[in-house]
Amino acid sequence: MIDQAIFQKPVLVSMKDLDVTTVKLLIQRAEAFKQGLHLELTTPLYAANLFFENSTRTHTSFEVAERRLGLSVVQFDPQTSSVKKGESLYDTCLTLAAVGVNLLVIRHWQDAYYKMLINQPSLPVALINAGDGSGEHPSQSLLDMMTISENFGDFSGLKVAIVGDLNHSRVARSNMEILHKLGAQIFFSGPAYWYTPEFAPYGTYLPIDELVEQVDVMMMLRVQHERHQSAADFDAAAYHRQYGLTVERAARMHPDAIIMHPGPINRDVELASELVESKRSRFVSQMQNGVFMRMAMIESVLRAQDLGCLV
Amino acid sequence: MIDQAIFQKPVLVSMKDLDVTTVKLLIQRAEAFKQGLHLELTTPLYAANLFFENSTRTHTSFEVAERRLGLSVVQFDPQTSSVKKGESLYDTCLTLAAVGVNLLVIRHWQDAYYKMLINQPSLPVALINAGDGSGEHPSQSLLDMMTISENFGDFSGLKVAIVGDLNHSRVARSNMEILHKLGAQIFFSGPAYWYTPEFAPYGTYLPIDELVEQVDVMMMLRVQHERHQSAADFDAAAYHRQYGLTVERAARMHPDAIIMHPGPINRDVELASELVESKRSRFVSQMQNGVFMRMAMIESVLRAQDLGCLV
Amino acid sequence: MIDQAIFQKPVLVSMKDLDVTTVKLLIQRAEAFKQGLHLELTTPLYAANLFFENSTRTHTSFEVAERRLGLSVVQFDPQTSSVKKGESLYDTCLTLAAVGVNLLVIRHWQDAYYKMLINQPSLPVALINAGDGSGEHPSQSLLDMMTISENFGDFSGLKVAIVGDLNHSRVARSNMEILHKLGAQIFFSGPAYWYTPEFAPYGTYLPIDELVEQVDVMMMLRVQHERHQSAADFDAAAYHRQYGLTVERAARMHPDAIIMHPGPINRDVELASELVESKRSRFVSQMQNGVFMRMAMIESVLRAQDLGCLV
Repeated sequence: MIDQAIFQKPVLVSMKDLDVTTVKLLIQRAEAFKQGLHLELTTPLYAANLFFENSTRTHTSFEVAERRLGLSVVQFDPQTSSVKKGESLYDTCLTLAAVGVNLLVIRHWQDAYYKMLINQPSLPVALINAGDGSGEHPSQSLLDMMTISENFGDFSGLKVAIVGDLNHSRVARSNMEILHKLGAQIFFSGPAYWYTPEFAPYGTYLPIDELVEQVDVMMMLRVQHERHQSAADFDAAAYHRQYGLTVERAARMHPDAIIMHPGPINRDVELASELVESKRSRFVSQMQNGVFMRMAMIESVLRAQDLGCLV
Repeated sequence: MIDQAIFQKPVLVSMKDLDVTTVKLLIQRAEAFKQGLHLELTTPLYAANLFFENSTRTHTSFEVAERRLGLSVVQFDPQTSSVKKGESLYDTCLTLAAVGVNLLVIRHWQDAYYKMLINQPSLPVALINAGDGSGEHPSQSLLDMMTISENFGDFSGLKVAIVGDLNHSRVARSNMEILHKLGAQIFFSGPAYWYTPEFAPYGTYLPIDELVEQVDVMMMLRVQHERHQSAADFDAAAYHRQYGLTVERAARMHPDAIIMHPGPINRDVELASELVESKRSRFVSQMQNGVFMRMAMIESVLRAQDLGCLV
Repeated sequence: MIDQAIFQKPVLVSMKDLDVTTVKLLIQRAEAFKQGLHLELTTPLYAANLFFENSTRTHTSFEVAERRLGLSVVQFDPQTSSVKKGESLYDTCLTLAAVGVNLLVIRHWQDAYYKMLINQPSLPVALINAGDGSGEHPSQSLLDMMTISENFGDFSGLKVAIVGDLNHSRVARSNMEILHKLGAQIFFSGPAYWYTPEFAPYGTYLPIDELVEQVDVMMMLRVQHERHQSAADFDAAAYHRQYGLTVERAARMHPDAIIMHPGPINRDVELASELVESKRSRFVSQMQNGVFMRMAMIESVLRAQDLGCLV
């Protein structure tokens, strides 16, 4: 059983708060769920997923994880909520806690939105960050670590490339943080102007053609057109040729090396369409693992809340 | 147990239809749910919540109440429904009843929309009004009565101020109706031009500075910008200074007097932000009580429908 | 019990794939559900309903059918999904399958969208077409056959008129296909320019006044304004007078003849408002039957997927 003290507070918002031991415990627990571990709630619990940005993978994955753990999922759509009448995120959460919601899973466009929600005695709820602006994306990061762990066992000395739209990527930020702690060697690639100074302490920049033969993991990032100023000027074919993982480049990867992508994929931009479901690709595994990792995350924050209801 | 004959028809749409005895029975029943009363459905029942106006509190509160009573909640979003193809509200409800929905909870922008739905033999469903235009808001009104009852026991002679955007407020209309029947003394305040002749029979108008020291309940109303013609001209600071419950004014309230607000709050407009979770405020209690009162309402209409399925 | 081999593949997308025996088995099974047949899942199953076009009847009917069979329904709204970031329908389905969804019910504006989804080993899900563009609408067609079967027993020699907006109607396409196989005699009516050559092999065109006295079923189609180029020019009263089922025309129908409509109805356009719930009308029966037919369809595709979980 997961140690009830894995978290002191019922909050999981940033990879910065997680040490190596905790990450490994969460991976271990997620693997147990994947093997069929089943928990029972001893009292009804309610979850609400507040997605202020579009999502398929993360949203449905959290919902399935909640239902598998026996939670009841309350519908919430920002577009038809009182947010449209100007209600703040804090007051929205205050409301949901008051009507009996026990777990809030939030994706929001504002960086570190969660700072206004944690350490509030009036919000007796568990909280998981499902992505904050260009900040972090801890559940994606943890499912990525789980997937890497399944393939390579240990992280020490593992060579991981994070490639593409670094600047707007919360996946890049969360993953470089934890990969660094876990002892992996990090490389960055993609358009050089997206390799801003905040990335330098975590790893060096290399053109993709120099990277592709020497790393164990090619972690391709989605070009986030919706966060760019001038999406109209973007030349997808040119990007693919210069920065993308093409079929030709993939052929030069180490025999055991894998390809990862957090999705959604711009096919034939950052990643060749033919590679998406290729033998090297862990795209589908990542999505499958996501449900089990999110179950482990939810279990942890519920136990920290001391609801004493998972047996 | 609630008397099966509390309602003749499976309909709860207006506070005008409820006498004092019924309101007190509903409060008593809601308190029993709050104390942990648990009912079981003997047959599966389905609820649909049709919200044609934005809502967080009322919508999620009804959903949690339905789930706590064991009902299955069918998703319905007017924005992706056949309403967009021009289907009428009546035909929408006819459809939902035909596919097996047993309870409809409706919020609609049209005043008294429910008149076209009740007494229709082809609609064998229970119906609760969750707010009609600038008409009524019975579930808010009943949870407000529950909250007042918890604080003061009896309503007789209780002094209640309803303050703010009276003209557009279904909360004001529903509450003045039932408070009057319950024997409370009602006062109104806010911009004088919103105190239209329909309010006069229920209570007198006083400037907030004259009210604040003498009433037991300050019921602050939300300024409903979305129903106003010229929201751009609105000066929030000026409104707060002249008509709002400021920290200074709250300090002059009677020691046992309470502050209420139906939410969502325009912080620092009708109510000072610091007061929202202050000791006097019942804002969170109102939201908590809402779930239990809605359980009592749902139980009552289901029993009137004679589904014989709650034990 | 339904034969586990009723379908070879867990897919129900077109009436063209169904022979007469299968249709009759599905009707028989739907009637069993209507009589109260109850199945139990031996393992939790998840359904997702992907509606890329507006719907009330079909969407809620599938959801109720899924819940009655014990499936858990995962929320999915294209408007707030990664489809908005450009993710393809295939990748969306790949994602849902990966997170553990077992049944996809899809309505999409693209004709035959399902061709890119079936026979994909990477998509281990059951698939039901809930309407594709101006293509087909098999669940509507099957519930229509069930309703006709309840009224007339056999289809052989039955005279069925399909009247109205033929050109845009997937209901017309699915129904003429199966009615033809079942031995019914088909007639078409409505504006002659909507009777395009694809309809000719299935039945002759007649003006409504010549049809109304000689057919057993008047199947009225909705004028689909949203699929027309020039909705502004449309004269509803003129359409009703010339092509619609008026009260006067209905009075000339054979005593046992019935009126059907897939909904939503444009009242007083294709069908007089007074006729919607008249004795001849099967509009409400169609919607009621829809839930049971969809249960039969879902059961069939789940059994073909060999989930072995319905007992």
